[in-house]
Amino acid sequence: MDYFYGPGRNHLFVPGPVNIPESVLRAMNRNNEDYRSPAVPAMTKTLLEDVKKIFKTTSGTPFIIPTTGTGAWESALTNTLSPGDRTVSFLIGQFSLLWIDQQKRLGFNVDVVESDWGQGANLDILASKLAEDTAHTIKAVCIVHNETATGVTNNLAKVRKILDDYRHPALFLVDGVSSICALDFRMDEWGVDVALTGSQKALSLPTGMGIVCASPKALEASETAKSFRVFFDWKDYLKFYKLGTFWPYTPSIQLLYGLREALDLLFVEGLDNVIARHARLGKATRLAVEAWGLKNCTQKEEWFSDTVTAVLVPPYIDSAEIVRRGWKRYNLSLGLGLNKVAGKVFRIGHLGNLNELQLLGCLAGVEMILKDVGYPVKLGSGVAAACAFLQNSTPLIASRI
Amino acid sequence: MDYFYGPGRNHLFVPGPVNIPESVLRAMNRNNEDYRSPAVPAMTKTLLEDVKKIFKTTSGTPFIIPTTGTGAWESALTNTLSPGDRTVSFLIGQFSLLWIDQQKRLGFNVDVVESDWGQGANLDILASKLAEDTAHTIKAVCIVHNETATGVTNNLAKVRKILDDYRHPALFLVDGVSSICALDFRMDEWGVDVALTGSQKALSLPTGMGIVCASPKALEASETAKSFRVFFDWKDYLKFYKLGTFWPYTPSIQLLYGLREALDLLFVEGLDNVIARHARLGKATRLAVEAWGLKNCTQKEEWFSDTVTAVLVPPYIDSAEIVRRGWKRYNLSLGLGLNKVAGKVFRIGHLGNLNELQLLGCLAGVEMILKDVGYPVKLGSGVAAACAFLQNSTPLIASRI
Amino acid sequence: MDYFYGPGRNHLFVPGPVNIPESVLRAMNRNNEDYRSPAVPAMTKTLLEDVKKIFKTTSGTPFIIPTTGTGAWESALTNTLSPGDRTVSFLIGQFSLLWIDQQKRLGFNVDVVESDWGQGANLDILASKLAEDTAHTIKAVCIVHNETATGVTNNLAKVRKILDDYRHPALFLVDGVSSICALDFRMDEWGVDVALTGSQKALSLPTGMGIVCASPKALEASETAKSFRVFFDWKDYLKFYKLGTFWPYTPSIQLLYGLREALDLLFVEGLDNVIARHARLGKATRLAVEAWGLKNCTQKEEWFSDTVTAVLVPPYIDSAEIVRRGWKRYNLSLGLGLNKVAGKVFRIGHLGNLNELQLLGCLAGVEMILKDVGYPVKLGSGVAAACAFLQNSTPLIASRI
Amino acid sequence: MDYFYGPGRNHLFVPGPVNIPESVLRAMNRNNEDYRSPAVPAMTKTLLEDVKKIFKTTSGTPFIIPTTGTGAWESALTNTLSPGDRTVSFLIGQFSLLWIDQQKRLGFNVDVVESDWGQGANLDILASKLAEDTAHTIKAVCIVHNETATGVTNNLAKVRKILDDYRHPALFLVDGVSSICALDFRMDEWGVDVALTGSQKALSLPTGMGIVCASPKALEASETAKSFRVFFDWKDYLKFYKLGTFWPYTPSIQLLYGLREALDLLFVEGLDNVIARHARLGKATRLAVEAWGLKNCTQKEEWFSDTVTAVLVPPYIDSAEIVRRGWKRYNLSLGLGLNKVAGKVFRIGHLGNLNELQLLGCLAGVEMILKDVGYPVKLGSGVAAACAFLQNSTPLIASRI
Repeated sequence: MDYFYGPGRNHLFVPGPVNIPESVLRAMNRNNEDYRSPAVPAMTKTLLEDVKKIFKTTSGTPFIIPTTGTGAWESALTNTLSPGDRTVSFLIGQFSLLWIDQQKRLGFNVDVVESDWGQGANLDILASKLAEDTAHTIKAVCIVHNETATGVTNNLAKVRKILDDYRHPALFLVDGVSSICALDFRMDEWGVDVALTGSQKALSLPTGMGIVCASPKALEASETAKSFRVFFDWKDYLKFYKLGTFWPYTPSIQLLYGLREALDLLFVEGLDNVIARHARLGKATRLAVEAWGLKNCTQKEEWFSDTVTAVLVPPYIDSAEIVRRGWKRYNLSLGLGLNKVAGKVFRIGHLGNLNELQLLGCLAGVEMILKDVGYPVKLGSGVAAACAFLQNSTPLIASRI
Repeated sequence: MDYFYGPGRNHLFVPGPVNIPESVLRAMNRNNEDYRSPAVPAMTKTLLEDVKKIFKTTSGTPFIIPTTGTGAWESALTNTLSPGDRTVSFLIGQFSLLWIDQQKRLGFNVDVVESDWGQGANLDILASKLAEDTAHTIKAVCIVHNETATGVTNNLAKVRKILDDYRHPALFLVDGVSSICALDFRMDEWGVDVALTGSQKALSLPTGMGIVCASPKALEASETAKSFRVFFDWKDYLKFYKLGTFWPYTPSIQLLYGLREALDLLFVEGLDNVIARHARLGKATRLAVEAWGLKNCTQKEEWFSDTVTAVLVPPYIDSAEIVRRGWKRYNLSLGLGLNKVAGKVFRIGHLGNLNELQLLGCLAGVEMILKDVGYPVKLGSGVAAACAFLQNSTPLIASRI
Repeated sequence: MDYFYGPGRNHLFVPGPVNIPESVLRAMNRNNEDYRSPAVPAMTKTLLEDVKKIFKTTSGTPFIIPTTGTGAWESALTNTLSPGDRTVSFLIGQFSLLWIDQQKRLGFNVDVVESDWGQGANLDILASKLAEDTAHTIKAVCIVHNETATGVTNNLAKVRKILDDYRHPALFLVDGVSSICALDFRMDEWGVDVALTGSQKALSLPTGMGIVCASPKALEASETAKSFRVFFDWKDYLKFYKLGTFWPYTPSIQLLYGLREALDLLFVEGLDNVIARHARLGKATRLAVEAWGLKNCTQKEEWFSDTVTAVLVPPYIDSAEIVRRGWKRYNLSLGLGLNKVAGKVFRIGHLGNLNELQLLGCLAGVEMILKDVGYPVKLGSGVAAACAFLQNSTPLIASRI
Repeated sequence: MDYFYGPGRNHLFVPGPVNIPESVLRAMNRNNEDYRSPAVPAMTKTLLEDVKKIFKTTSGTPFIIPTTGTGAWESALTNTLSPGDRTVSFLIGQFSLLWIDQQKRLGFNVDVVESDWGQGANLDILASKLAEDTAHTIKAVCIVHNETATGVTNNLAKVRKILDDYRHPALFLVDGVSSICALDFRMDEWGVDVALTGSQKALSLPTGMGIVCASPKALEASETAKSFRVFFDWKDYLKFYKLGTFWPYTPSIQLLYGLREALDLLFVEGLDNVIARHARLGKATRLAVEAWGLKNCTQKEEWFSDTVTAVLVPPYIDSAEIVRRGWKRYNLSLGLGLNKVAGKVFRIGHLGNLNELQLLGCLAGVEMILKDVGYPVKLGSGVAAACAFLQNSTPLIASRI
């Protein structure tokens, strides 16, 4: 039994960790194995090959690291940069803030471009900074693709365009934690140098794998980067890649098999279909929010996120109370507002292996909670708006036609 | 992976087999064991004691039989009756029909009391039959507590009252397959002689256990009953009960541990709270049906079922198409109309370990499907009606207060 | 946690239920499904086709029944015979005794051919009975292929030959519970009319499926057989086979997926390799017994069983104490002696998904227990004898070469 | 199915990752959860309290870090030391070598005390170094409690005594990866400042948790230590400990529940009984090695390891071939010889949730493999020696008496 048992399924709508498909749970339900037997390298080889597809890269080199997203950040930074290096980083919410904090603690000279929480990265300022930086003191542009705290998606193609416009050689480092496998992401096309995600996000696995992918340019940078790193050093991985044994230290056997199944599910559905499904669920959520008469924390449509929606509540409501009631009354897990938006927003995560009716159940729950806490919502209104859109746009399930 | 994979959870709303809680799946995820070791009898003892609570009996003797509901029927009948015995049986839908068919094939003289599908058992006719039967030729009254095909719940207390009014000694045999653990059921208070259920219904387990409970009077009848039975013979169980080894043949170790967990979950929530939850979900479903402008197959409120709702569709719609689209488009599993109501009704099963938001997701799905198939439903209307009721009536989860 | 937890793996060497491979546990670790959706029939179709291979039949019709071996017996008998029919049945141990008891309770006129426990079926008597039976009063010859209580394997090819020699039309009914998928079994070649097994034996699944296979002649007999049967009636299955929905009542979804994986494992290894593995493990066990200076309960080599070995203990030892100590001290589960041989034999089950080192661990355990209970065994002797044989005969694992 | 399927259980005798008990697999077989709900902190609190027991500390502060043993090393070092700090480190095998390598890469001034592989740490040299170091330039003594590559256990009590003899304030840092929960380890009594282990070793979990425990003195050191650390910084943990939410970044929900069960199993058996079991299995293994006429890589009895035995093979045999054949023929996983002892030793890991018969099966397998590769072993000899010891020393299973 669980701690604090409640009847029925838990409705898990935090933006990570997300729901794990039953077949992935099955794949992981196994004893340990000798990771030096022929079986584990044989499987690892397929994983390293296939994981590139979720980054849309053919030239990148992936690292599957037994760590979290925070560790993946550190891997990306320490392998490519040296203490004192200047980075341009965008502060638009709690996770970009934490990444910036890490950059500072690692000794970089961080040039922070701040926006209001709810806005995307200010790319005009990036342009002006690059324009001024004829000496190429900027070594990296660090950006969170999707800010999980505010539900803001940044425009990576535009970042690349600006870099190209100024022929600036800065590395392009992307936190894709709540985007990769869910939002359109094109490592090669957009010239991303390091991209990373965590297993517990759109891959729909347990926490425990930071997946980092490095471009040839990033790999080259790693040869001279001076940041201290041992556990996170790519060199150790590259050494074992050459040996064909792949692992510098013991991987989680269970997560490897889980990743194998998670990738298989993505490919069976089709990565583009997965992304379209996220777009559908994201839009349905926003339509519901609108129907409730509430505001999206995200201030402009261009930044709307298809993986998480942060909903602003009226000042007389504490958004944490919404989250509490969800858990206590409806077995619904919503995301809290963090830091600057604590108490002001609650978050609906709609990423990972999720379908329309799961989301609609969640939206119905949110409506009831809003009423619970005294917001004059018209019950059914959000669901109606979402259904009107979904009933028109949901395709037949490909394998069931 | 599954056959015909679809993203997200399958929304399982057939009236059996029903959703299995994760903790029950966990409990069953184990190797076989020697069922003659001390461990299995020790656990079995607790199961036999605790399973009586779901029947609300202290005087009954339970049998946990490796079979389905159909086998449980046969166990109930063959252990208490003899070929040629007269039974009164109520035909009100597909499952009562199948049970009557079984009674006939077992050689009983079945006195069938038929009602329109959508009505409950005609107890007035029962009364007149008992009144006439001064010679006590009627050996058993056989009744399905909850007819799963039409969503009709019969009034068992009234059956008992009629039997008492006429001081009739007939055995009172009850199919509780889609009622026990979900609807109010009181074996001792209502003087039920044999009650039975299947593991895959409100107990929320896999198929594989027919659970039959016999009153002292039924046990006594079993000593003289002449129906052929070997596999289903209670004598074999009773012999092993005395020996303290409990099992005349190999039980499913996995289902025993599953049953242990399923009972623990019921007791943690509280059996009366479980029943109240079913009442809540049943009423919410009916309110949605009403809001859609559709008719409940069940013709009167007194028969409304809190475990399954059969919804009548307009003549220009094939209800099977609704079920098909649910599966193909929304990963939703609804129940087909059976036999006389094939094509005319679809069924929403709302029994077992289920909560409010799961049901609301299903109802939202049904609305979209209704629109898909050309019924002029107002999207959101059913969910709104259900929410209005649930938002007022859903209690906090006891263990989370 | 388990009842009566002990560290390490339980060493399960009872002759059923047997060890379940991890991949089969995985396959079964899943929620219920609507068995009327397209997925379940699609999978069932493959199962019915593939399950014929384990019987080595192309003309037989399989039935996968939610029951145990005892129920499978009843299915075989009641569908092919009528009350009063004469059967010839061989009593050579506890399971043949139980089957004969069932035959009597089902009203057949059972002509019992008894042998000492430890001997095989007396086929000379069969021959003389058939010779005398020119009127063909014998309707069926019922034989247990492998008597699990004594570790005796009967010669089915010889039974067929005798039937053919006398051109006798009696049905040939075979209990293959502890043989099929482990011993050489050839339904078509040997003209077996009904063969049956249980999921918890060599198929290495949980208990819950009786698998029965009927020859065309048996199917024909079922059309006129008069034995009472409802739950076990093949007609219900055949009706649903025609409809393409396959299931007259709810199957266990979990066992269906488990069976799919169990069959896949058998086919990957190769059924003949599986049988050879059982032969290897059986012989290794017997060599150990010999090295210990103990006698096999099975009296002649021609009857030696490759799935279970019943070991006779000296009169001053209670074999039940051996089983008890195994469980209490070494987390080893051995089979008790049953009925006539209670206290006199203990049994080592070596069937199912098992390999050499598992068996050797068990044999080492038995040696220590023998010493524990005062038998002057030379420690290591049995293992040495088994190793000497296995080291020469164990092939490389095909998929790992 | 697995990659390279083989029948029966895999016999996993590498010294990590080790066998996971079925009940731990069950506990981990669950969906993700919101780690900010009340449930996860409530459970975490019990884990942090209980995990101290495996270190035998009441004053220590544990950190459960989503990383491997390598990461745990880095956590221990970077939080307590500054670049340039002098450490004394013992090089006695591959894992101490890797830790020393890490220390160098982290910028410490490592004073390496080397011994032959197969010998323990040279504590006389430690004494002389401490004697000379009146200026207290040595900031830490770093020692691997149990060198997994050679099966050598160092005497930690003696290290503490030497430190005390010289009243030396150096931090005492211990790698307990293959010792904690298996060998006698006493953090408080021995004045260990940082101890660490990995989940996949004697805790019998999957890889993914580095568990680090810091003494008050170590915590104090962490306040001034200058090594770069972000992901591994204890400060982030301590901050969240104070908040009562415990996790600075997403933990693995599955591993938390797995750890809960693993600790429960340890406590039910009793930590001292667990250690005694390891002592028993270690000795049995060494007796077998002796009986085979082979040498233990560990050169003196005082260093014998009860968790792993490295066996020297004659020069005409390649030990890697032994490992290969184990995997290919007997589904047995043994440990390779590493680095200096590659080809010269193979390793039997006997740690974690393991019992006597599992080990004996392994030993029987090793005997057959030795014969396979041309070593003139007397089959059964090792098992006989091990059994002679185990039959006398194995206690009844406490919960089964």
